[in-house]
Amino acid sequence: MPPELPPDMKWWGWGDPARRTELPEAALARLRELLGAPARRADPVPIESVALQEPRLRPREREALAAAVGEQWLRDDRHARIHHAAGKGYPDLIRMRSGELGNSPDAVVYPASEEEVSAVLAACAKAGIAVVPFGGGTSVVGGVEPVRDGFDSVIALDLARMDEVAGVDERSLTAQLGPGLRGPQAEAALGSIGFTLGHFPQSFEFATVGGWVATRSAGQASTGYGKIEEMVVGVRCVTPAGRFDFKPLPASAAGPQLREFVVGSEGVLGVITSATLKLRPRPPERRFEAWMFRSFPEGAEAFRALEQDGVAPDVTRLSDELETLVSLELARGRPLRRRAGLAYLRARGYAGGALAIVGYEGEPAKIARRRALAGATLRKAGGLSLGTGPGKAWERERFAGPYLRDALLDNCIMVETLETAAEWSSLMDLYSLVANAIRTALSERGTPPLVMCHVSHLYPSGASLYFTFFAAQEQDAELDQWQAAKSAATDAIVAGGGTITHHHAVGRDHAAWLEHEIGPLGLELIRAAKERVDPAGIMNPGKLLPERDGRPG
Amino acid sequence: MPPELPPDMKWWGWGDPARRTELPEAALARLRELLGAPARRADPVPIESVALQEPRLRPREREALAAAVGEQWLRDDRHARIHHAAGKGYPDLIRMRSGELGNSPDAVVYPASEEEVSAVLAACAKAGIAVVPFGGGTSVVGGVEPVRDGFDSVIALDLARMDEVAGVDERSLTAQLGPGLRGPQAEAALGSIGFTLGHFPQSFEFATVGGWVATRSAGQASTGYGKIEEMVVGVRCVTPAGRFDFKPLPASAAGPQLREFVVGSEGVLGVITSATLKLRPRPPERRFEAWMFRSFPEGAEAFRALEQDGVAPDVTRLSDELETLVSLELARGRPLRRRAGLAYLRARGYAGGALAIVGYEGEPAKIARRRALAGATLRKAGGLSLGTGPGKAWERERFAGPYLRDALLDNCIMVETLETAAEWSSLMDLYSLVANAIRTALSERGTPPLVMCHVSHLYPSGASLYFTFFAAQEQDAELDQWQAAKSAATDAIVAGGGTITHHHAVGRDHAAWLEHEIGPLGLELIRAAKERVDPAGIMNPGKLLPERDGRPG
Repeated sequence: MPPELPPDMKWWGWGDPARRTELPEAALARLRELLGAPARRADPVPIESVALQEPRLRPREREALAAAVGEQWLRDDRHARIHHAAGKGYPDLIRMRSGELGNSPDAVVYPASEEEVSAVLAACAKAGIAVVPFGGGTSVVGGVEPVRDGFDSVIALDLARMDEVAGVDERSLTAQLGPGLRGPQAEAALGSIGFTLGHFPQSFEFATVGGWVATRSAGQASTGYGKIEEMVVGVRCVTPAGRFDFKPLPASAAGPQLREFVVGSEGVLGVITSATLKLRPRPPERRFEAWMFRSFPEGAEAFRALEQDGVAPDVTRLSDELETLVSLELARGRPLRRRAGLAYLRARGYAGGALAIVGYEGEPAKIARRRALAGATLRKAGGLSLGTGPGKAWERERFAGPYLRDALLDNCIMVETLETAAEWSSLMDLYSLVANAIRTALSERGTPPLVMCHVSHLYPSGASLYFTFFAAQEQDAELDQWQAAKSAATDAIVAGGGTITHHHAVGRDHAAWLEHEIGPLGLELIRAAKERVDPAGIMNPGKLLPERDGRPG
Repeated sequence: MPPELPPDMKWWGWGDPARRTELPEAALARLRELLGAPARRADPVPIESVALQEPRLRPREREALAAAVGEQWLRDDRHARIHHAAGKGYPDLIRMRSGELGNSPDAVVYPASEEEVSAVLAACAKAGIAVVPFGGGTSVVGGVEPVRDGFDSVIALDLARMDEVAGVDERSLTAQLGPGLRGPQAEAALGSIGFTLGHFPQSFEFATVGGWVATRSAGQASTGYGKIEEMVVGVRCVTPAGRFDFKPLPASAAGPQLREFVVGSEGVLGVITSATLKLRPRPPERRFEAWMFRSFPEGAEAFRALEQDGVAPDVTRLSDELETLVSLELARGRPLRRRAGLAYLRARGYAGGALAIVGYEGEPAKIARRRALAGATLRKAGGLSLGTGPGKAWERERFAGPYLRDALLDNCIMVETLETAAEWSSLMDLYSLVANAIRTALSERGTPPLVMCHVSHLYPSGASLYFTFFAAQEQDAELDQWQAAKSAATDAIVAGGGTITHHHAVGRDHAAWLEHEIGPLGLELIRAAKERVDPAGIMNPGKLLPERDGRPG
């Protein structure tokens, strides 16, 4: 691995290859009991056992690509190809852990500049090679799976070398960032001059600026800082037919907002080569604290009041009753102390309730003022303050979830997450509808799940719902089992008036439902754009747009 | 005029036909002196003298349209055709006042429902009739001029009958509004149940919801309430190829944000048939107050601090030194009193400075808190509080500007406004560049202008600039004179990094510069979309997109 590149993640799972999480014995036993899951373990196969097709690039094609980026920046060794064969969705992990990749790229290219990206796309358009733009590789919806879709060859276009922090404008509070910049790199560079992006998705440690913009990512502090699309003031994107260059502008009435067509385009139009994002002053203080509500709906009403009164904290997360139980007891694997203890909650009438984590970022005096206003609203809405203890616990573990997922998969327990957003008036109905759909779909297969949920992104007109569910894996039918749950959940989301995705993007997993959200004419609009800027259809095939004949299998 | 329709504006100018503004004699004399403008007067021709072509619809076409909306809702009398022959831009008014319309619609149709809109578009697509969607007719960029662009016939599609307030969702704070709803109607209906949109553009009294959405309108309180695109959570739009129906969602990651493609589409894709907008509680108090700064740049820095500190008022308007002089002295035509008096300002070192109007809307306690925070920032940045006097004067006259324009035109004085927005770091340079371009262009023609400007919409990364300029009209060359100033100003905006329009839209007037803003590939994207949803090209020809061969004359 050339030294200029950031370290790879585990090829079969999440994060730092040196960090392997094991579940506490008691928690695992309890979970197996609740799910009726047999004690079974299945570690990923060793990398040597991974089946990989021979690379299919013809010599002349390989030469053209090497000419575009330099010979040493085209790689078609096993390591590079396996590490770019999948994202980090549940189907990806099932596929990778088994060693049966199905799809893998024929080569990986690492352009260093917008010009090199253009040269790569030109070579691929000429030869008919599919191109998968690759940032951190953290997609959980199949967004980086190297689908060939009729093309002989497919390459991953890894943006890791395009990680510049340029054009910091301290008066306008903006900076132009390279697409390959990872979260910690961006925060370190901006933090050293007093700024933050305020964008901290769970994938923060590995995901990239370009990936965030291409997928409409939302960070854990999005209630305060906004989703990524609210931070993007300018963007550049190279397509096979030329370049979009939407310069940073605070607002405009010059026709349709085309920036919003590139943001969320998921690589199917082109490659995002830079994004100008808003900066905020680096907060001298971050304070996370916890509140309890008697029920999830009571907490949701409290959050609605916070947001509609204009006093919402920056981080707002409300767990339903089951997720509350899990986060307070099971997941930490140790008894609760003092204020968040069960005895205290029971005495106050909050046992079995819903836990809220709220976080404030900024200057201490401003935080104090905001806490007073938000606290009054939360108390009035029935909230009980639990102090900073559970808030700190959440902060410590805020990026650890995906490691835990690998530990569950090691123990043959299915775990999947999915998210939506809807208006406040339909939010609790949608919650029930989706949770029940998942329960029914998996119970019918003999693997009754645990389904839990949180609200974590607030808007004046509504909020997001983020579901996590667990079930005993169906051996040798893991993907069928997953598809059944996923389809049931997404059908329920559509029926209940939610968006098919709030921040995971469409990718492969949601493509079949996109028409429900944007209608047939909406699909035609995207297709017309794609045909114009990518006439050969090489850009990220199989993502975002559904096959013309409907659902995937 | 059928009773269901709102009253028409003056056909040749702004607003209520019964209201005719005259300039105070002293002010007019002083202005003539400053501009070197001869004492000359030219009233609009009487309506009977207006030259109008015979309507060109063939009988079968007229029948088809009448069948779509009902016979009584197709009008091709002189009154209807003249009232739909232009918007309210300077070139429109020159054209109308002279009685030489050039373009006029062959008929006006008034659909009552989305289905009728579909039927009208189907009939027009079949027969090859151009369609100009018409809301309040208040466009100042040529957005409703009935351009034929090769079609034999053109109709205006007036949305006045589609003025429903439906689906008020008090928990999600949204309402679904008909496109023909005018500002006062919307505020009356929503106000009666405790809400406001908070959208108050200068055209408020006549402009419509559909027009606001189609043109990315901004209200005078946009710093607090946001531009219209920040209020739109859902939108429906009928095109010749079918319907877009983007349901209200608080946020989504489902690919490109297509809602942002319909918002700002200026009628060239289809007809907006409803918009779901955010509601806010109707403010029990509105408080406008004034501050002085020693200079325009000092005031702009104060506004930047307000916005970037997160304490900006809802209305924020900062006049440059000349506009300050005019609004404090000339326009009101009466001496200033007490606190805003010249003696007071001189004594404090603020004579010749820049006036800021700031406005707060909401509950009195919240306003008090916000005023304290904003006041501290303004004072620290050099501001001098002038109390509520000039603020109240501004509030009284906030929708009166366009009446004054007619009075100036009566006296052969050119007055035009144009707007842009840019990042804070380039804002003051852009201000000089544009003001100087207008001065140079008009001085070269022997009509040296007065150019003034204000900042009125704040964003974390930048702000808008709104220019107003006056000059002696060049008799019989009014449009050449206007085009010279307009071209010089827009070239300067492009060179200085501003948007070609912050809230007036593209229309005809800015179409030639759109490529500078969105690039050739951006134009191709819009063209690809238009060809897909409007293959016959009947929707609002000549607007938004430039001719393929470049600039208009």
